[in-house]
Amino acid sequence: MDQEVPARAVDYSRVFTQAIDRLHAEGRYRVFIDILRNKGMFPNARCFAGHNGPKPITVWCSNDYLAMGQHPKVIAAMEGALHDVGAGSGGTRNIGGNTHYHIDLESELADLHGKQGALLFTSGYVSNEATLATLAKVLPGCIIYSDELNHASMIAGIRNSGCEKRVWRHNDVAHLEELLAADDPSVPKVIAFESVYSMDGDVAPIHAICDLADKYNALTYLDEVHAVGMYGARGGGISERDEAAQRLTIIEGTLGKAFGVMGGYIAADQTIIDVIRSYAPGFIFTTSLSPVLVAGALASVRHLKGSSEEREGQQAAAAKLKTLFADAGLPVMDTATHIVPLMVGDPVRAKRISDILLAEYGVYVQPINYPTVPRGTERLRFTPGPAHDEAMMHELTQALVEIWERLELRAAA
Amino acid sequence: MDQEVPARAVDYSRVFTQAIDRLHAEGRYRVFIDILRNKGMFPNARCFAGHNGPKPITVWCSNDYLAMGQHPKVIAAMEGALHDVGAGSGGTRNIGGNTHYHIDLESELADLHGKQGALLFTSGYVSNEATLATLAKVLPGCIIYSDELNHASMIAGIRNSGCEKRVWRHNDVAHLEELLAADDPSVPKVIAFESVYSMDGDVAPIHAICDLADKYNALTYLDEVHAVGMYGARGGGISERDEAAQRLTIIEGTLGKAFGVMGGYIAADQTIIDVIRSYAPGFIFTTSLSPVLVAGALASVRHLKGSSEEREGQQAAAAKLKTLFADAGLPVMDTATHIVPLMVGDPVRAKRISDILLAEYGVYVQPINYPTVPRGTERLRFTPGPAHDEAMMHELTQALVEIWERLELRAAA
Repeated sequence: MDQEVPARAVDYSRVFTQAIDRLHAEGRYRVFIDILRNKGMFPNARCFAGHNGPKPITVWCSNDYLAMGQHPKVIAAMEGALHDVGAGSGGTRNIGGNTHYHIDLESELADLHGKQGALLFTSGYVSNEATLATLAKVLPGCIIYSDELNHASMIAGIRNSGCEKRVWRHNDVAHLEELLAADDPSVPKVIAFESVYSMDGDVAPIHAICDLADKYNALTYLDEVHAVGMYGARGGGISERDEAAQRLTIIEGTLGKAFGVMGGYIAADQTIIDVIRSYAPGFIFTTSLSPVLVAGALASVRHLKGSSEEREGQQAAAAKLKTLFADAGLPVMDTATHIVPLMVGDPVRAKRISDILLAEYGVYVQPINYPTVPRGTERLRFTPGPAHDEAMMHELTQALVEIWERLELRAAA
Repeated sequence: MDQEVPARAVDYSRVFTQAIDRLHAEGRYRVFIDILRNKGMFPNARCFAGHNGPKPITVWCSNDYLAMGQHPKVIAAMEGALHDVGAGSGGTRNIGGNTHYHIDLESELADLHGKQGALLFTSGYVSNEATLATLAKVLPGCIIYSDELNHASMIAGIRNSGCEKRVWRHNDVAHLEELLAADDPSVPKVIAFESVYSMDGDVAPIHAICDLADKYNALTYLDEVHAVGMYGARGGGISERDEAAQRLTIIEGTLGKAFGVMGGYIAADQTIIDVIRSYAPGFIFTTSLSPVLVAGALASVRHLKGSSEEREGQQAAAAKLKTLFADAGLPVMDTATHIVPLMVGDPVRAKRISDILLAEYGVYVQPINYPTVPRGTERLRFTPGPAHDEAMMHELTQALVEIWERLELRAAA
């Protein structure tokens, strides 16, 4: 900046500093914990932050729900691809970056969801944003009906499409029907929702929503990122478990949570896949997933299609931890899934508990604050999996009870 | 769909089919080539499409510009991370997905561009979209000045921010000044542009643009994705080569092109990094880059900071290929960079040339069509690198001359 700056010039530095100050003032400035997980020993990890050298910790908040990120088949597949074809794809899917791995994985994912085709994206976020935005642009005058707790990436896609949007109360099919019935029957409609809501751990009534979609001639878009790999006999998600997959227009999933790697995808009829593939900027104009990741995801999806051991281990661990928390009088939220949230209701207190757990007990669980959850519902969110054993669970429960007493927090009602 | 569908119901299937038909009619329906590159033998690859088993080809359109995707240091680093910490990160940067690798790479990238901080994204596309959209939202009333040839991801970020936008004629600083001068001096301004424009291969006048930014008190945002690793003594891009890095507010780059891996980033003052880190949905709500990729990118960035051999090899190869094309009377576009485009001017013909090259000559170069380039400027875009030898270049030139004669295409003026 030179001396020619006009008198009324913007003070950029002040605007940016104020934006950060607001976060501090609200107690929701985020500090990233500096860790490395230990392959072969999940949920164990090393923590670097504020220590002289790595300190061992137990990770309780990973979305590598089934510890597939350390599965020998996944590691071997990634190592194989790394030595066969190298590190990155080197281009977009259209220009040099389409590999045989991508094609195989898309076939595997289409089969997983009983759909004609599938399409890979660099992340679940991008798959939601790009697909919803493109879908609404291709369908003239389209209205999207969005569950009020839909993920930020779906909200971004809907907003970026510029289409009309109706928000229905969370999992409330009566409200959804009210909104559908009020709109012109000749207008294209898309109902967008999730199967497992990741912060509350509750599940959508898929069949009831599909009934409304049939009645009002709407398409359906289901985000299964917190369910794929974990529900259904082959890991096809809640839509497989509930035998609803064939009723849904588009199923969206991730390779970065239960499948343990990275990336996102949609599965649908071939024509819809072709439309998104051909029109979505977030798909077209980006370097494709590294073949190393694709090979790992392929091994993971294939393994979980044939093995239910990990799913059963996760469900058993979640049930056990919920019981331990409830028996200890901790404010565990009632969930129908593998997600175990403890309600705190205040960002500063949630961070304080998390800090004590890490510093004094070697337990890593991240506080969840706004905008990930509504203000006033700040919480700790535990994701027990097949690799968390009972001794770890007892230690965790004991630590939480001690901290709850020390901070004089209200116990569960 | 059931029998209750109203008479005026939308025929979704027809809308989708028509959308695809439009692409066929324009000759720009994209067919992805099915390949696997051969690590250790770039630019050689295997092609699967339409053959009984893999057929060897030479890749001429990869953005793995320096063949770092097969560099032994990159492969070793990725293998090391894979065995040390596993496949995926398991979470967002805030919730379980921040690793020591991420922190190290951000330091390395900040240093590369002489900035206080850096921030990783899952792709270059996301880094542009998320940063520009967030920047404009944080700065009330902000106007973004965008070069007319800016990449789709920058356009998406600007549009998604909802801010005012002024488009200036490509690399035309007089026009940019005209637009800046016409706006209220007290309004926040961001000038967004690229250093190397990837389809034309020309370079922005960075200092002249920074002069205007100083004069009109605007921030600057420079996309260096087609320059990082390749220009400047340490691979810091055109802004390093031109000694302009310290004048730019934000420099954006990719890990998926010259660095050979996958992912994107920005480098800037710490406060700006902190603002984007804290407010950008595309950064916050997505699983972080796999530590395997981050480790590979770290090795690649470090190597290219200290080695100019790859950069020199690329420049020599590009100069040689341009000369061969020009001497053969092929319509090579004049570029100041490593990018060697041959103008065709028609999507059907560009695809036809590409198809013949692949089927008959084992040469893979993707036709570039709308929306990647404006209609009527369809082209073939060659990216020679240090691994393309002279024999390959002579074969390629000969093949093109034969095809040009066969299709009776106009030679260069």
